[in-house]
Amino acid sequence: MKHKLINEAPERTYAVVFETGDEALAGLARFAADERLDAARFTGIGAFDSVVLGFFDLQRKDYERIPIDEQVEAVALVGDVALGPDGVPKVHAHVVVAKRDGSAWGGHLLQARVRPTLEVMLVESPSYLRRRTDPATGLALIVP
Amino acid sequence: MKHKLINEAPERTYAVVFETGDEALAGLARFAADERLDAARFTGIGAFDSVVLGFFDLQRKDYERIPIDEQVEAVALVGDVALGPDGVPKVHAHVVVAKRDGSAWGGHLLQARVRPTLEVMLVESPSYLRRRTDPATGLALIVP
Amino acid sequence: MKHKLINEAPERTYAVVFETGDEALAGLARFAADERLDAARFTGIGAFDSVVLGFFDLQRKDYERIPIDEQVEAVALVGDVALGPDGVPKVHAHVVVAKRDGSAWGGHLLQARVRPTLEVMLVESPSYLRRRTDPATGLALIVP
Repeated sequence: MKHKLINEAPERTYAVVFETGDEALAGLARFAADERLDAARFTGIGAFDSVVLGFFDLQRKDYERIPIDEQVEAVALVGDVALGPDGVPKVHAHVVVAKRDGSAWGGHLLQARVRPTLEVMLVESPSYLRRRTDPATGLALIVP
Repeated sequence: MKHKLINEAPERTYAVVFETGDEALAGLARFAADERLDAARFTGIGAFDSVVLGFFDLQRKDYERIPIDEQVEAVALVGDVALGPDGVPKVHAHVVVAKRDGSAWGGHLLQARVRPTLEVMLVESPSYLRRRTDPATGLALIVP
Repeated sequence: MKHKLINEAPERTYAVVFETGDEALAGLARFAADERLDAARFTGIGAFDSVVLGFFDLQRKDYERIPIDEQVEAVALVGDVALGPDGVPKVHAHVVVAKRDGSAWGGHLLQARVRPTLEVMLVESPSYLRRRTDPATGLALIVP
């Protein structure tokens, strides 16, 4: 376990709100690039009319895709932003969704179409975090 | 997707702690009104002895009620506070709960009775967010 | 419900990143002790190769252990740090995990072995929160 103190000064807080039809992950990635977010964290709630969850398969070194093609509540979106190995801000998000019967499903957020809203509260630190490619998994992991 | 920078200055952080028998959503709403919270976010953990989850039905424009009448862990409470169309602070919360077998259930938080504790960490920004009634759904959505 | 304003000044934000083989809860506890965290909150995402969830049994006044011995996504880690009755920082964490089929499971975090990463964003307030032993349950609950 390693750590980095990424802030002791005031941070910037953004409300990022998505509307029906918006793609959540692509939107967050575009926002991170536009605002040049080098170190941020976020939480969010809302609803999707379809979502693709991911489960990382350590053997295949890729994500199993778990598509859910129905309206779901986005119950807990949790994630962070750090600079990727290529220097571009990279969004990493996980999400718990709930179906009409209340059953909860979750995973890595690969794709999600918003309906009718997704309310993300994002806090940016005046510092940076960097990801480096991990040879064992092929994933870009934060190295504090 | 729209966004609003709601803070660059220090924010206020509150620990809001509920005890056995407290109603979580009503308590948060009262707290938001008392403190006049215009833009806030929160996360929390604890346990409930009963909870009513909601799944928004876009056809009926109302929430399906999913009552769970047993002790559950409150695993991830995530939410925000913004001014409603009537100018009164409105709490929007989603929650994941887990039953004795570890199975997770989730949805919009309609009601929850705390037992024995609910620990909410709430951060208020020195700005405001406003909700406006969305004609398509009847929901009051944040308009940054 | 009681509350305490624990901050109006800038807070400290830490990125705490775990690697394969790290024990998540023990690591967080050691970090909290090393940094002398008196009042903090955190969220995190990542993955575990095994985890033990807890469900608090109010009759037995102890946790049912729910072991999950397989690779899971850590979808929503939510928690806080407060001083225990003994004056030592105590980490309280709940977690939602997702299996390969996307099904979500959750509870009190008793134990978790990280693989390949766990990214925790932790914010410390320049104040303190204290836990006191609750006679009814034997749990150390935050008293604001």
